[in-house]
Amino acid sequence: MTGQTLDDIRELAQQLRVDSIRCSTAAGSGHPTSSMSAADLMAVLLARHLRYDWRRPDEPANDHLIFSKGHASPLLYSMFKAAGVVSDDQLMNGYRRFGSVLEGHPTPVLPWVDVATGSLGQGLPDGVGIALAGRYLDELPYRVWVLCGDSEMAEGSIWEAFDKAAYYGLSNLTAIVDVNRLGQRGPTELGWDIDAYVKRVEGFGCHAMPVDGHDLGDIDKALTHAAESDRPAVILARTRKGRGFSEVEDREGWHGRPLPAEMAERAIVELGGERQLTVSGPLPRAGTPRTRASGEVDLPRYEPGAKVATRLAYGQALAAVGARGDVVALDGEVGNSTHSEEFAKKYPERYFEIFIAEQQLVAATVGLSVRGYVAFASTFAAFFTRAYDFIRMSAISNANIRLCGSHAGVEIGADGPSQMALEDLAMMRAVEGSTVLYPSDATSAAYLVREMAARNGVVYMRTTRGAYPVLYPPDEAFPVGGAKVVRSGPEDQVTLVGAGVTLHNCLAAAGQLGEDGIRARVVDLYSVKPIDTQTLLAAAAATGGKMVVVEDHYAAGGLGSAVLEAFSEAGHPVRIAHLPVRGLPGSGTSAELMEAAGISAARVAQAARDVVRG
Amino acid sequence: MTGQTLDDIRELAQQLRVDSIRCSTAAGSGHPTSSMSAADLMAVLLARHLRYDWRRPDEPANDHLIFSKGHASPLLYSMFKAAGVVSDDQLMNGYRRFGSVLEGHPTPVLPWVDVATGSLGQGLPDGVGIALAGRYLDELPYRVWVLCGDSEMAEGSIWEAFDKAAYYGLSNLTAIVDVNRLGQRGPTELGWDIDAYVKRVEGFGCHAMPVDGHDLGDIDKALTHAAESDRPAVILARTRKGRGFSEVEDREGWHGRPLPAEMAERAIVELGGERQLTVSGPLPRAGTPRTRASGEVDLPRYEPGAKVATRLAYGQALAAVGARGDVVALDGEVGNSTHSEEFAKKYPERYFEIFIAEQQLVAATVGLSVRGYVAFASTFAAFFTRAYDFIRMSAISNANIRLCGSHAGVEIGADGPSQMALEDLAMMRAVEGSTVLYPSDATSAAYLVREMAARNGVVYMRTTRGAYPVLYPPDEAFPVGGAKVVRSGPEDQVTLVGAGVTLHNCLAAAGQLGEDGIRARVVDLYSVKPIDTQTLLAAAAATGGKMVVVEDHYAAGGLGSAVLEAFSEAGHPVRIAHLPVRGLPGSGTSAELMEAAGISAARVAQAARDVVRG
Repeated sequence: MTGQTLDDIRELAQQLRVDSIRCSTAAGSGHPTSSMSAADLMAVLLARHLRYDWRRPDEPANDHLIFSKGHASPLLYSMFKAAGVVSDDQLMNGYRRFGSVLEGHPTPVLPWVDVATGSLGQGLPDGVGIALAGRYLDELPYRVWVLCGDSEMAEGSIWEAFDKAAYYGLSNLTAIVDVNRLGQRGPTELGWDIDAYVKRVEGFGCHAMPVDGHDLGDIDKALTHAAESDRPAVILARTRKGRGFSEVEDREGWHGRPLPAEMAERAIVELGGERQLTVSGPLPRAGTPRTRASGEVDLPRYEPGAKVATRLAYGQALAAVGARGDVVALDGEVGNSTHSEEFAKKYPERYFEIFIAEQQLVAATVGLSVRGYVAFASTFAAFFTRAYDFIRMSAISNANIRLCGSHAGVEIGADGPSQMALEDLAMMRAVEGSTVLYPSDATSAAYLVREMAARNGVVYMRTTRGAYPVLYPPDEAFPVGGAKVVRSGPEDQVTLVGAGVTLHNCLAAAGQLGEDGIRARVVDLYSVKPIDTQTLLAAAAATGGKMVVVEDHYAAGGLGSAVLEAFSEAGHPVRIAHLPVRGLPGSGTSAELMEAAGISAARVAQAARDVVRG
Repeated sequence: MTGQTLDDIRELAQQLRVDSIRCSTAAGSGHPTSSMSAADLMAVLLARHLRYDWRRPDEPANDHLIFSKGHASPLLYSMFKAAGVVSDDQLMNGYRRFGSVLEGHPTPVLPWVDVATGSLGQGLPDGVGIALAGRYLDELPYRVWVLCGDSEMAEGSIWEAFDKAAYYGLSNLTAIVDVNRLGQRGPTELGWDIDAYVKRVEGFGCHAMPVDGHDLGDIDKALTHAAESDRPAVILARTRKGRGFSEVEDREGWHGRPLPAEMAERAIVELGGERQLTVSGPLPRAGTPRTRASGEVDLPRYEPGAKVATRLAYGQALAAVGARGDVVALDGEVGNSTHSEEFAKKYPERYFEIFIAEQQLVAATVGLSVRGYVAFASTFAAFFTRAYDFIRMSAISNANIRLCGSHAGVEIGADGPSQMALEDLAMMRAVEGSTVLYPSDATSAAYLVREMAARNGVVYMRTTRGAYPVLYPPDEAFPVGGAKVVRSGPEDQVTLVGAGVTLHNCLAAAGQLGEDGIRARVVDLYSVKPIDTQTLLAAAAATGGKMVVVEDHYAAGGLGSAVLEAFSEAGHPVRIAHLPVRGLPGSGTSAELMEAAGISAARVAQAARDVVRG
C-alpha cells in the first residue's frame, strides 16, 4: 500500500500487533505486549514519515530508526516484514533462533539496524550522535527517530541525551516515548503522568508533544510537527501495554512473556486475523554527505630525551590525524587535560564538547561511527568506567570507536584515588574485539593515534599525566600487536616488562641493576591487546624465564594477566614477579605514590634481584 | 563564635576563602576558585544549619554533609578547621601531601567524610541513600546536605538522584548547587541560566530555590526553608568562581589552579587577612536509630539433584538473611528476574525499588552502608557495567556493599548479547579489596549470600538464569576463598575447573571422558576472588599440571586469568587449556550458545582429551 489512509494504517498497525504476537509465541520468548503498545506509533511512522529506501539501507540520505526500547524487537521485525525486507517465514522461524539475524534484541547484523539496543537508555544517546553527524558533518536532512520506553526514562543517560540534543539544537531528532505505564515488574514511577514527562522534557530544552498513542490522526499530526520543530521533539504517547487484546491490555504480569498458543489464537482473532500487507513509505530526498578534503597526516616529531607527556602527544597527533577529513573528536569537558583541545583549536567544526556526561560522550562517538566518521573521544581514563555499559554495547553494535583515557594510575599524584584509573586495562581488555594501547613516550603515542584511526572495533589508548623522556626516534614504527625490546644484551638475566610510566621505572631499574652487575632486558608492552607473544617468549627464553611485570594498575586483569594469558596460550607458562598497584592510594607526588604502591624503579630493581637470585 | 550574626558569618566565609587559598598554594595544587564560590553558602550552613557534633562524628543523630563537588576539598577542610577538628598546621602542611588524611578529594579516611567524591555526580546519589536510611530505616530527623557543582548537573546520575529523591519524598535531603558558571575549560552549558535549572529541578519533583549565593541573609532563609520543605530541596545559588579576589573572580583559566605565592598574598590582603575563627554550629537533636529485632538466619535447604536456579536461591537466601534486622535490599526494577522479590515480599519496609537507574542503585547502596546497613543490590549482571564508576568509587569510600548480578553469560539464551554479562568478572575482580563469588548450585549460592552479609568491601555474586541440579547437601560449608573438589579419584589425569554453569558442563564432560577411560578431577571455583590457590595447586599436582578452565565470560580477566595469576603468584606457573566465550554471541538456546561459544560439555571433553593426549 502507498498513499495510505488512516484506515490503511490501522490495518497495518493490527498486522504489526498480530505479527509481534505470532513471532514471539513461535519463539517461546519475547515481548509482545511492549510491542503492541507502540504499534500505532510505528505504523504511522512507517507509512507516512520515515523516509527510507528499504532496498538500499546504505543510502546516505535515509532516515534513521532506532528502537531504544530494544525489547520491542517483535515490533521492529514486524515493521521490516511490512516493509518487504523480511519474509513472514523468516519472522516466524527465525525470531530469537540460533544463527538467525532476528536476535532477541536488535543488533546491526541486520542492515536496517544502526546500533545494538537492549540495555535501556542507550538508543537515544546513540541517536544524538547520529543527529550530530547529520546536522554538523553530513549536512543532510535525514531525521533520526528513536522509539523509547517509559521505563528507560529513569536512566540518567536519557537526560544526558535530551540535554545534549537541546544544547546542539538537534531539531533533526525525534524521540517517541511509548508511555504504556507498565515496566517489567509493575507500574513505572510516573505511570501515565504525561504532564510530569512534559515538564522534564521541556525543562531539558526539548519540545514535548503529548499525544494519544492510539489515535492515528493525533500521532500523524505530532510526527508532522516534530519534523517541523526547531528543537528536538519528544512525542509523549499515552499508550496501553498489550493494546488490542483485551485479555492482556493494560494488565500487569505480561511483560516479556509470549502469549501461550491458544491465547495467541484468540488475540489474533480479536485483532482481525493475520494480514500480509506491505507498505511503501516515503523515500528520502536525494543528497550526499558533505565530504571534507583529506590531506597528508604529518605526525608531530619529538626529540629523543625531551620530556613530553603522552597525553600531550595524543592531542598533537590527533590534530595531525585531523588532516583526514573524516576524523572527529569529542571530550567530556577536560580537553585541556586530555589535550584533545589541540584538535579543537585546529578543527573546531569537527569537535564536539559533550561536557561532563561520559555516557553521552561514548554514545555520541558510537552514533558518529554509524555515519562512518572516525571519532575519537577522550576524558580521564578513570571516568570511562562511567560509560562501561556503553562501551560493552558498542562492541555488540560493531561500532568503531576510539577512546583515549588520560591520567592513568597513581602516577597522577596529588589529586588522589578518585581521579586514578586503576581498573581500566581490565575493563577494556574484557571487551570483545577490543584493542588496548598504552604508550610510554610521545613518539609511540603519536604513531599509535594514527593506527587507532585505521583500526576497527573498540580501540582504547591509555595516557599518562606526567612528562617523561621521549625514548624513540621520530621514524620508529609501532604496529598494533607489537612490543619493543628497549634494552637488551646477550647475557641478560631477567626481563622487565612495563608500559606507560612503568616502562620508565623499568629502564631506571635496569640501570640500577647494572650497577649491581645484573643485566636486565626491558620490554615496552605498548600494545596490551593484541599482545606480542613472540617478543615476550623470546625475552623469557633469553632470560631463563625470569620476568618482572610492572603496572600502574590493580593486580587483576591488567598487564600481568595479559602476559600470563599470552604465555599460557602459547604453551609456555611462566612465573612472573608481578608488581601491580597494591592497596588504596592516597595523595602525594608521583614518586611517593609509585613507591608506596610498589611499582617504583627501586621496587622493580628489588623484585628483579629477588628473581635473579632465586 | 556561637549565635553568630551575619557579620560573624561574613568573617567566617572570608576565613574559608583565605584558608582555601593558603592550603592549595602551599600544596602547589588544588581548586581554590571552586572553593571560594561556595564559601558563603558553606559558612551559613556551618554556623547555623548543619546540626553536627564535631567531637562525636559517630553520633547517629548528626546531619550529613557531602561535597559532591569533591574538588572543593580546600573549602571542606577549611570548614573542618573552623569547626576546630583540623588544625591550621595540618591544613597547611597536610593538604594533598603523601600520608596525610587531607587528600586531594575527600575520602572517608576522615571521620567527618561519609563517602569519597571526586568523580562528579556521585555525592548526590550517595546522599539519596543516606536520606533513604534516615527517613525509612533509622527514622531519625538528621538532614543530608549535599554541595553540588554546576558542571556535574550534566551527569545523568544527578537526575537519577533528583528523581529518586522526589519519588521517595526525601524532604530530609537538600542539594546546594554552586552555580559559578565556569567549568574546567570554560563556561558550563547553562551558565547562569538559573531559570533553566529551576525548570529541570521542579520537573523532577524537587523544590527549587534560587538564591544569590553571596547574600548571606538570602542563603540563610533558603537553608531554613529547605529544612522545612515537604520535598527534597535544591538551592540553586548564583555564585562567582574565585569570589572575593578581583584578579580571578569570574574569570576563565583559573579552574584547578592554586594561586602563585605572590598572588595568594594579594588575595589574602583583599580578603581581609588570615583569621583563626572557630565556630560552634547547632548540635543534633538527641535520638537513636530505630533498631529492628534480629532473628536466626534459617537458610533455605535444597535437595541434591533438584533443579534450582542460583538466582532463585539468591532471592530465597536473601529473604532468609533478612531475619537480620539490618539487612536491606534494592533492585533495578528486575526483582522478578534477580529474585530479590523474595525479600521484598517478606520485608517490604526494608526493600527499595530503584527502577531502571543502576547508578543510583549502587549509590543508594553506598549511602545505606554509610548508615551501617547491610545492603544488597541486584540487577542483571550485564547492567552493573552501567555503574562501574560508582562501584570503583565505593571501594575508595570503604563502603560495604553487596551486589548480585543475575543472567550471567551466554547461558541466558534467546535474549541475546545485550543482556549477557561477559565482562563482569574482569570488572569486579579489578576493584580494590573486592570479593567475587560465582556459585554453581542453590546450596552454595544460599550459603554464600549469608557470607556476603558478613563481609566488608565490594562483594559481588554472579548468578545464572537457568535451573541446574543441586550438587551439594544442605549442610555443606562454602567459605569465601575456598573451592570444592566435586569429583576426584586417585588416578585423575586432568583437572577441569569451572564455576556457575560451566561447572555443570565440566561434570558432564568428566562423565563423557570416563567413557573414554580418561579420569577427570572437577573443581568448583565458587570463590573467584579470593581464590583457593591451595586446592588448585593440589589438583594440578595430582593431574600432572594438566588443567582445563572453562568460563561463561570473555577471555580476558575472568576465571582463566584468576587461575593463572594464582599459580604464578604461588611460584608454580601452569599452562591451562582455556575455554572462555569466543566471538560475539547471538540468540539461541543455552545449549546452542554454549556450544557455539566453545564452553559446552562436549568442548570441555575435547579440550581435556587434547590436554591428556598432549
